[in-house]
Amino acid sequence: MTKQISFNAFEMNCIAHQSPGLWRHPSDRSTEYKDIEYWTDLAKILEKGLFDGIFIADVLGIYDVYHQSAEHALTGAVQVPVNDPLQIVPAMAAVTQHLGFGVTTSISFEHPYPFARRISTLDHLTKGRVGWNIVTSYLESGSKNLGLSAQLNHDDRYEVADEYLEVLYKLWEGSWEDGAVLRDKHAGRFADHTKVHPILHEGQYFKVPGIHICEPSPQRTPVLYQAGASTRGQKFASQNAECIFIAPPSKIAAKKIVQSIRQKLREEGRDPYSVKIYTLLSIVTGETDQKADAKFKEYQSYGSYDGALTLVSGWSGVDFSQYQAKDRVEYIETNAIQSMLDAYVNADPDRIWTIEEIAQWNSVGGNGPVIVGSAQTVADELQHWIEETDVDGFNLAYILAHQTFIDVVDFIVPELQRRGVYQTEYGHGTLREKLFGHGPHLAENHRGAKYRQGTKNKFAHAS
Amino acid sequence: MTKQISFNAFEMNCIAHQSPGLWRHPSDRSTEYKDIEYWTDLAKILEKGLFDGIFIADVLGIYDVYHQSAEHALTGAVQVPVNDPLQIVPAMAAVTQHLGFGVTTSISFEHPYPFARRISTLDHLTKGRVGWNIVTSYLESGSKNLGLSAQLNHDDRYEVADEYLEVLYKLWEGSWEDGAVLRDKHAGRFADHTKVHPILHEGQYFKVPGIHICEPSPQRTPVLYQAGASTRGQKFASQNAECIFIAPPSKIAAKKIVQSIRQKLREEGRDPYSVKIYTLLSIVTGETDQKADAKFKEYQSYGSYDGALTLVSGWSGVDFSQYQAKDRVEYIETNAIQSMLDAYVNADPDRIWTIEEIAQWNSVGGNGPVIVGSAQTVADELQHWIEETDVDGFNLAYILAHQTFIDVVDFIVPELQRRGVYQTEYGHGTLREKLFGHGPHLAENHRGAKYRQGTKNKFAHAS
Repeated sequence: MTKQISFNAFEMNCIAHQSPGLWRHPSDRSTEYKDIEYWTDLAKILEKGLFDGIFIADVLGIYDVYHQSAEHALTGAVQVPVNDPLQIVPAMAAVTQHLGFGVTTSISFEHPYPFARRISTLDHLTKGRVGWNIVTSYLESGSKNLGLSAQLNHDDRYEVADEYLEVLYKLWEGSWEDGAVLRDKHAGRFADHTKVHPILHEGQYFKVPGIHICEPSPQRTPVLYQAGASTRGQKFASQNAECIFIAPPSKIAAKKIVQSIRQKLREEGRDPYSVKIYTLLSIVTGETDQKADAKFKEYQSYGSYDGALTLVSGWSGVDFSQYQAKDRVEYIETNAIQSMLDAYVNADPDRIWTIEEIAQWNSVGGNGPVIVGSAQTVADELQHWIEETDVDGFNLAYILAHQTFIDVVDFIVPELQRRGVYQTEYGHGTLREKLFGHGPHLAENHRGAKYRQGTKNKFAHAS
Repeated sequence: MTKQISFNAFEMNCIAHQSPGLWRHPSDRSTEYKDIEYWTDLAKILEKGLFDGIFIADVLGIYDVYHQSAEHALTGAVQVPVNDPLQIVPAMAAVTQHLGFGVTTSISFEHPYPFARRISTLDHLTKGRVGWNIVTSYLESGSKNLGLSAQLNHDDRYEVADEYLEVLYKLWEGSWEDGAVLRDKHAGRFADHTKVHPILHEGQYFKVPGIHICEPSPQRTPVLYQAGASTRGQKFASQNAECIFIAPPSKIAAKKIVQSIRQKLREEGRDPYSVKIYTLLSIVTGETDQKADAKFKEYQSYGSYDGALTLVSGWSGVDFSQYQAKDRVEYIETNAIQSMLDAYVNADPDRIWTIEEIAQWNSVGGNGPVIVGSAQTVADELQHWIEETDVDGFNLAYILAHQTFIDVVDFIVPELQRRGVYQTEYGHGTLREKLFGHGPHLAENHRGAKYRQGTKNKFAHAS
């Protein structure tokens, strides 16, 4: 039997998230991102399509590397303005029963103590449907506005992240024992205070003496997502993540990353398949291949060259305005552009990419590939992806809000269900139980589990 | 014509907010505080009763002064656990059209840059129904968990608060000019970037060079609430607040505070009636005075002596466990207990309060008075309050969630409407327009207005 396929929706509280320029299309709704109905409508579409969840990206900063200016970002609405990702979740939760919510937050931007409360509150309100995408850095333009003079260097960032997670695990897993909450109206005892423990955390970066201010939420620790692609990032992910998002441009590149992630999990003593890996994709579909192709061509005509290079410049830190449209990527010093451009080169070693082609690639569906065709064609290709790369599912970016997701739900989901590779109803319980068939809490061999039912002594010994 | 009367609901994302012990009553729902339905049900009740808004208090810390322990707070669910106040608002907004939302946040707990985004997001999602209750300090037990070794001293706190507000006004009022957002699909221009300004803030406590990351929300600056009672707090409020919450135990005490607030407003060059003052109250009502009295006695039987003194100890910083139930307040060194106990003494100079009486007072409806009686009796007394104290409305604490508010909506609102002193439909527009009849933005002579449509020069000269 072919492996089951899972869908996540990839969103952000902004306009034309991964498809710069497409907001100009008459049918695109993403300029309504600031309205509550935009999100409640979307949540209902995704739940109808039995999506695992919606994954909400975030960037608290402006893409101002391209032309060393914010002009193109502002004129073209390239991920700016961008609203808070957290607050759209309670509204979506109010109109759904099963859909999961992955919220992105950087550990640089809030102290772990109030952050722990935010996530516990959300897990309560959603009855255990929350995931957290752990981000360790942000755009330089964002950190400046918080008075952080420079980003921590890459490896130090993970030192802080390790301790940040430790504080959270102590609060979420250890502070309130199972059975601490009695809720006994008759006896007048809400909690057994002997089972509620101050975490007494004194670390290098944080001092948190107190108890968690929230009672345990359904999942305690939210489902943990990560998207780090660097070696250090993969180590961090292999210790903490339960879901990993990747964004390679091709199956060849995806296969390498997936192998590396599963190997790291083995090295950490975790089942390599205890983590779900979702890869970024977009889908353009219709009744026939021809109709889908025509749709795609029309979408491409709305893509923005400047918008795409605004994103690519921000992601890579390199001002692409210094290159001409016909310049070939092989002539760019790729080591200065981090791993991103390498991925394009590796994706298809025989292809010579021009700047223009990279811009076009990124202007529709972001840096992930776009699969175009009828339901049969797309389903075939999705199955090829699953078989050849060993990913567990797809993180689907939209091209047109919400039409892309409506098309996926109307065309692709039924086809995959017919093939027996897509769920026909939601599983029971919390997001973690739906994803992994166990829970609602972290698996016993997860790093966070050792902080459970803590006593003062246990905390002192745990590391 | 008698002055119009306004109602606010006083809530907190916790159990038995102002009535410690009452969660043990079989009809109380406040133990459901963590569920989304608790809040959506409440929002619908309040909107049916044409309440101005719901004011959500917050304390990120534990009441651990009483017996110098968290035991009574945890056992009796005395404002702990307490979830994040912000996230219940989008859920309530999704099921209402008019109700306002006042959210409490301390300036100590988040940098103004991401905080500005949170509030702008909420104002967008609610279509302009957001208020912010500005808090400058918190429980010591809370600040410790953020690694703040000691609270700033009282006056310094307001220096920080002044600059915090300055940063927010620059972001909310000045960064995006009116007309900066074009949303022009046809021309492909989302914004006119020449009308979006970096705020270039370099102050004593904060450095924020960038633009506001959100486009202007309906109100830009949310309706500003304040509850500071000290002299410095009143000055801060008179410069910033549009609504002020007070909590005196009697009409005599209320009258003095209101006079002082309106005088401070005059001194700041503002119309003394440009600020709405709400005073804390609870209402117990029923078909007849007798039925209301019986209800009140039953409620009182669920009040908790230890729970009330846990609150009073936390508010005052004095461990009340050192006193006996029959001890008289006049024997306590009131100057060590800040202004709180003075208020009891001033409330009725001839009355000798015992510790037990203070506990009983605070165990039902918090430190505000409780008005008990039929709709006629209560309406009479509310009108006396308005006439004798010059307040604009009432911040109503519940005794039983949600029964207290259901009773107010069923009995008191129709009686006040019959007398022509309560609105019979909501006004138009944003919260600010509903409250003041003008808006949606800050009044021209408000401190925040001078930061409008800022240019670099303007910011450099504004103070």
